[in-house]
Amino acid sequence: MALNAAYEAIGKTFVEQYYVLFDDPNQRPNLVNLYNAETSFMTFEGIQLQGAQKIMEKLNSLGFQKIARQVSAVDSQPMFDGGVIINVFGRLKTDEDPPHAYSQTFVLKPIGNNFYLQHDIFRLIIHDSV
Amino acid sequence: MALNAAYEAIGKTFVEQYYVLFDDPNQRPNLVNLYNAETSFMTFEGIQLQGAQKIMEKLNSLGFQKIARQVSAVDSQPMFDGGVIINVFGRLKTDEDPPHAYSQTFVLKPIGNNFYLQHDIFRLIIHDSV
Repeated sequence: MALNAAYEAIGKTFVEQYYVLFDDPNQRPNLVNLYNAETSFMTFEGIQLQGAQKIMEKLNSLGFQKIARQVSAVDSQPMFDGGVIINVFGRLKTDEDPPHAYSQTFVLKPIGNNFYLQHDIFRLIIHDSV
Repeated sequence: MALNAAYEAIGKTFVEQYYVLFDDPNQRPNLVNLYNAETSFMTFEGIQLQGAQKIMEKLNSLGFQKIARQVSAVDSQPMFDGGVIINVFGRLKTDEDPPHAYSQTFVLKPIGNNFYLQHDIFRLIIHDSV
């Protein structure tokens, strides 16, 4: 399969759509549709999870109600299976906690005319201060 | 190709080897051996580069002499082509500049019994302070 020339727009659009769902506690359960039941991997703060069900158990267990998020960079590259790898850098603040920088990597795997989320790695950058 | 069960050790070892080369100005040109002439992508602080030659022109143009680096997390996942995706989080200090958090993503693509670096995304986290 060829490289997808629209990788930049695909990356930006995916990131927007993902965080619209993630940041709204009422919509967060719909993220399940982005992951595959078996072949999606997530590493959340170093905890490794495989499959939509285990990933959603983790995401649904997150205790905060409010998220204020600021995305500062989205770096995307085309992959040779037609997929897209995306790195997001930003800051987020949950409830009344102090804001933290974070990094999240997504790998979108093509399936027909669409994509699913095959790899997802999330980390807060907790040693902010110099 | 099956998932490589040794992904965690492969990720950690690769990251160590990469930074041994990167952090020594005399060894840095040897990084060329990790990239493919055509099919390696690098995004360095938002600048997109393709192919070993263009990537090395960028890396060789970096002006600093000394790097102090502290890797705080290496998150790896196995990929379905036998590759490994790796996210590194750490801090680095070049010459007399203030230290910065950074994030770097690597995708290792299998080739025979070895790997080459197909995707490489590097960003400093410049908005460190709250």
